[in-house]
Amino acid sequence: MTSLGDKGSVQTQTKVLSQGCWTQVSCLCCVSERVEPLVLIQLPDSVQPVTKRWLISLIEASKRHGGAALLAQPGEDECGNVIVVSAPRCTLLRATEDLGLCKKYRNEEMASFSYHDRDNFTNVDDMQEFLTLAERQYIVKIELDSLQAQKKQRIPGVPDALGVLEAWENICQKLVRAGVIKDIFPLHNQQRLNDVCRRWYSKKQIWRQPLDAIQSYFGGTVAFYFSFLQFYTWALVPPAFLGLVLTFLVPGGGGVVKEQAVEGVMEEDDDGPSVSGHMVQAVFSMLWSTLFIEFWKRRSSSLSHRWGTRHLTERFAEPRPGFHGTLGLNPVTGRLEPLFPEWQRQLRVGLVSLPLVGLFLGLVVLGMTGFYHGEALVQGFHQDSGSLFSGALLYLPSIAHTVYTTILKNVYHAVAMQLTKWENHREESSFQNHHITKVLLFTFFNNFAVLFHIAFYKQDLPLLRKKLASLLILNQLVNQCTEVVVPFIVDHFLSAPHKKEQEDDLEVDKLRAQRSLPPFPGLFAEYIELLVKFGYLSLFSCVYPLTAVLLLLNNVTEIPGDAYKICKLFRKPFSAPVSNMGVWQTAFEVLGFVSVMSNCWLLLLSPRVQEFCLEGGISGKNIILVAILVEHVLILVKMILAFMIPAEPDWVRIKREQIEFNSMQALRQQDVTSFIPKHSLA
Amino acid sequence: MTSLGDKGSVQTQTKVLSQGCWTQVSCLCCVSERVEPLVLIQLPDSVQPVTKRWLISLIEASKRHGGAALLAQPGEDECGNVIVVSAPRCTLLRATEDLGLCKKYRNEEMASFSYHDRDNFTNVDDMQEFLTLAERQYIVKIELDSLQAQKKQRIPGVPDALGVLEAWENICQKLVRAGVIKDIFPLHNQQRLNDVCRRWYSKKQIWRQPLDAIQSYFGGTVAFYFSFLQFYTWALVPPAFLGLVLTFLVPGGGGVVKEQAVEGVMEEDDDGPSVSGHMVQAVFSMLWSTLFIEFWKRRSSSLSHRWGTRHLTERFAEPRPGFHGTLGLNPVTGRLEPLFPEWQRQLRVGLVSLPLVGLFLGLVVLGMTGFYHGEALVQGFHQDSGSLFSGALLYLPSIAHTVYTTILKNVYHAVAMQLTKWENHREESSFQNHHITKVLLFTFFNNFAVLFHIAFYKQDLPLLRKKLASLLILNQLVNQCTEVVVPFIVDHFLSAPHKKEQEDDLEVDKLRAQRSLPPFPGLFAEYIELLVKFGYLSLFSCVYPLTAVLLLLNNVTEIPGDAYKICKLFRKPFSAPVSNMGVWQTAFEVLGFVSVMSNCWLLLLSPRVQEFCLEGGISGKNIILVAILVEHVLILVKMILAFMIPAEPDWVRIKREQIEFNSMQALRQQDVTSFIPKHSLA
Repeated sequence: MTSLGDKGSVQTQTKVLSQGCWTQVSCLCCVSERVEPLVLIQLPDSVQPVTKRWLISLIEASKRHGGAALLAQPGEDECGNVIVVSAPRCTLLRATEDLGLCKKYRNEEMASFSYHDRDNFTNVDDMQEFLTLAERQYIVKIELDSLQAQKKQRIPGVPDALGVLEAWENICQKLVRAGVIKDIFPLHNQQRLNDVCRRWYSKKQIWRQPLDAIQSYFGGTVAFYFSFLQFYTWALVPPAFLGLVLTFLVPGGGGVVKEQAVEGVMEEDDDGPSVSGHMVQAVFSMLWSTLFIEFWKRRSSSLSHRWGTRHLTERFAEPRPGFHGTLGLNPVTGRLEPLFPEWQRQLRVGLVSLPLVGLFLGLVVLGMTGFYHGEALVQGFHQDSGSLFSGALLYLPSIAHTVYTTILKNVYHAVAMQLTKWENHREESSFQNHHITKVLLFTFFNNFAVLFHIAFYKQDLPLLRKKLASLLILNQLVNQCTEVVVPFIVDHFLSAPHKKEQEDDLEVDKLRAQRSLPPFPGLFAEYIELLVKFGYLSLFSCVYPLTAVLLLLNNVTEIPGDAYKICKLFRKPFSAPVSNMGVWQTAFEVLGFVSVMSNCWLLLLSPRVQEFCLEGGISGKNIILVAILVEHVLILVKMILAFMIPAEPDWVRIKREQIEFNSMQALRQQDVTSFIPKHSLA
Repeated sequence: MTSLGDKGSVQTQTKVLSQGCWTQVSCLCCVSERVEPLVLIQLPDSVQPVTKRWLISLIEASKRHGGAALLAQPGEDECGNVIVVSAPRCTLLRATEDLGLCKKYRNEEMASFSYHDRDNFTNVDDMQEFLTLAERQYIVKIELDSLQAQKKQRIPGVPDALGVLEAWENICQKLVRAGVIKDIFPLHNQQRLNDVCRRWYSKKQIWRQPLDAIQSYFGGTVAFYFSFLQFYTWALVPPAFLGLVLTFLVPGGGGVVKEQAVEGVMEEDDDGPSVSGHMVQAVFSMLWSTLFIEFWKRRSSSLSHRWGTRHLTERFAEPRPGFHGTLGLNPVTGRLEPLFPEWQRQLRVGLVSLPLVGLFLGLVVLGMTGFYHGEALVQGFHQDSGSLFSGALLYLPSIAHTVYTTILKNVYHAVAMQLTKWENHREESSFQNHHITKVLLFTFFNNFAVLFHIAFYKQDLPLLRKKLASLLILNQLVNQCTEVVVPFIVDHFLSAPHKKEQEDDLEVDKLRAQRSLPPFPGLFAEYIELLVKFGYLSLFSCVYPLTAVLLLLNNVTEIPGDAYKICKLFRKPFSAPVSNMGVWQTAFEVLGFVSVMSNCWLLLLSPRVQEFCLEGGISGKNIILVAILVEHVLILVKMILAFMIPAEPDWVRIKREQIEFNSMQALRQQDVTSFIPKHSLA
């Protein structure tokens, strides 16, 4: 028998749930004093009680009977439009093993959790200590997601046209399509949230965020984002310092500037750095970006060891809900599940997705070319006629380009999602990575097309410098507004009555407040912002050395802004345990390599460097050849550096090897036959 | 009791070993009808019987007593200067587990061998079926190599100055230094050897060598070399075909040639391909080299699965004999062994080895520059004076350069070996890879410096073409002589009397014949020859399209030549089980990337391409920029292609994942405590 207590860390939500409402647990070890509400399933107001009862019975049924082996509670009453879901101990522990999470063993080391050996893990009796809130909620989500119809059946209370489940159909997806489930989201735990907030953004903990608490409350993806953000902010200190020194302390080669001014070539812009400053900045930037990424990899691997996510076994788990294929026995695990050949996916990625993405990138370039072409045309026309009409026409190319870009972007986003679905990835992480890569490429291209055009086609460095500075400062201001000022206003003025109301009505169902919040939009926008700014810094740093200073300022305001957003302005997101930043890390790494090329090119274009070379007796053609040589050598140096710095600290490597050694030993001491799928034994 | 039979596959060597001479086995399961002589330890003639007895007792002692748990036999008599060594079943099986070899399980799948579960593996009772000859011999070698003095002791019969073993000192290395062991080498099995020969080179099986038999008799490294050679030969067919077509069937742009001849620029060399031929050749060569390496990776992984070497556990085994460090508990395996921190090795590689190798490469360049400089000087002097003395002086630069190169090469080889030893690699494979990389870089540089000089500094394509053709054809002829004609003569004429003698004296100790053969020089020379020729093909292919045809011819003669050499002209080498070609594969891969750069450059230099561009209205500076762009795009395409083609076939991936899944399951079903080193349990 489970019952709801009204004390402890279980929050106000629980108070509205009358005692004994929770479904019963099936095994003795799962009986607990109090049940913690983890996830809320939002139904439409029109839902039939019979459908709701069916769904609750499905949630509580054991896995053997095709259920999710969770605990459900019908909210205020049988007719309400919510189901609150929790998970019993056994389900949580089994799912922990399936996920491959590492937990603290009794010798204080991290070990892959084993249900068989569960009693040797610390805190295994207190689920709220053993698993983090984010993990418990994620487990509920995957259990719900993995609900499958065991045979063809009807959904009670739903019209026949929508309500027929085929055998092995995913139930949650079907219910969402049929309109029975409006939403599934994890519930905030107000006390813990306040605790995290207090330690995090209220005290402006920018340089030392409570990462473990963030990981525990919001989960792996969010914690990795903030860890990276903090690491990045620290890493920006040296280039910012160098930028300040180069801009304000180094004389700036005034002699050269005057000389140029006399020649009448460059008088309009003489605040660029000197030749040696250029060189120092470019080489430093190259080294810095390599070290940054390599040390982040080390940091990332120790974080993932600390959070027990180094040995996730997603590829051995059940496929993600959207995965489809011919039903068959998985050759590795021997489970019955949809199968889809790897080579077919590779072909789809290579022969369809890749060219299509290329096509869209081409369309971006086409749009930009069209814009410049149109602008030149209109300007010529205006100069010729000078009428009011032609003056108005001047705005046309800009408007047309904006409309074109917006349409293109929306079409691309739809296409990217459809393509990724069609590629039919088995694992959620693989799906995410492919989707993010597609959107990322396009967004990045869209952001940088203008800058690249100025740098490499127009070859106009002063314009590039101005554009870069204005982008950075404008972006900074907009950012400040949207991420710091607006939330501050919302928090301190607009939401004040709401807050008061909350304090008054402790008894009222607070779930409503959470339901009214918009869903968390994901970290894509945050990451792409970081990446684009990292691009400004690494790709064009030798043009505008103050970039790093502006970025540092930006990050310092970004951290509390983002923290406030995720804590207060949105619903709590589901967050999978992850072992790294996934494709974002690769994106930063690739940018590091591209930056070598772009910096070499910018140096080559720099009039002062050209002058310097000409004085040294190197002809125009040979300068290019020298630049190519330097580029190749720098890339080689970068690769050697990356190879030299191990991607994980020694102590993490040793722990990993210990686990590998142990599993090898374990395999040897067992009768191998016991694991071989029966069908493959002759 | 073990005894020697005089029938079965055990060869003539056994006949000279009188019955009952073998040391006794300690456990019942190891008793066998006949003992197969595997390895011969050659002692000096002056060896004391007491030393020999001590060594034999050490070899036969159990591991618990600091022995090697092998079988030994004193040869003809107690005073003879050889010890013949074999291995009992238990030692072989335990070592198979330690190596991590996969063997056939009773369900016909390959599974990591487990001593605990040994009875479920097929052929486990017949060591000659279960393990290959090369594996048995390698196991004897590692057991001998791992002999360690358990306490400080004296070697009986050896003067005190040399004969004191420190505690934990490696015994074999000490005995070699003290002159007690002259040599250790594996014995040929004449019947099996004849069998392999018959199926291999006698029938000129160039296109389909008996790879399994080679792997079984000569071991992994040798088998991988020949597998690669065969794969490479097949892969050369398409480029050879294209080369023939481009050379003889495509008109060759005669109009352009004439035009150039009229201009008086290029009349001396008009047999180069046309612009489109150039382009086709360059792009084809780029694609081909990528596909070649990617498909070889797939082939390599399926071979290593077939040969059971996909899950070698070298890093968990004992360190290689030359490894030193402070004695301590290995944190992973919990064994007492020398420890040496990874970061220190990385530092040594990065801060000492890398700059030193760079220095030597610089010296090569310096030598070449000096040579060209000296030659110009001497030629000028000769033209001025025209005396006999100055005529003789003309040879001086050549001679000086040859002497310089030879000295440099010898110094470098010594330095490379010392550096690699000093880097103190724990695993033999890591030692080999680092050593090979060093020598490889130097040899490659030495071979290509002249060609690069001609291509990139002199920018003289006709000279490059001539040089390339002469190198290839000369090399071909020399190769034919040394690898086919000479062995043929040796085999059919010179060794005839020797053979006759062998046939007469079946009873005589045939070990002597094997002792008289020179030791196998290793595969370095063979691999580097392949690599250099692959370099000719991929780096400069667009200059001389017939390269592939010549290489194909070369390989067709190389295979039987190499096969003959290894079968007849040398002692049998020890050959470790390996899962791939190691660093050689990387070398071929890197060359593929370098080839993109060099081909782009060569196209850029090609006078016809330049003319073609000028006609198209592209200026000299822009041609270079286009070339850079093309280079970067081609490298991107190469990387995408390499990413798209999985490095292992689907079926191999599934098998690998099965094993990983099983070992994860095994670990979960065991009490983790049993594997945690006791010292780390609180």
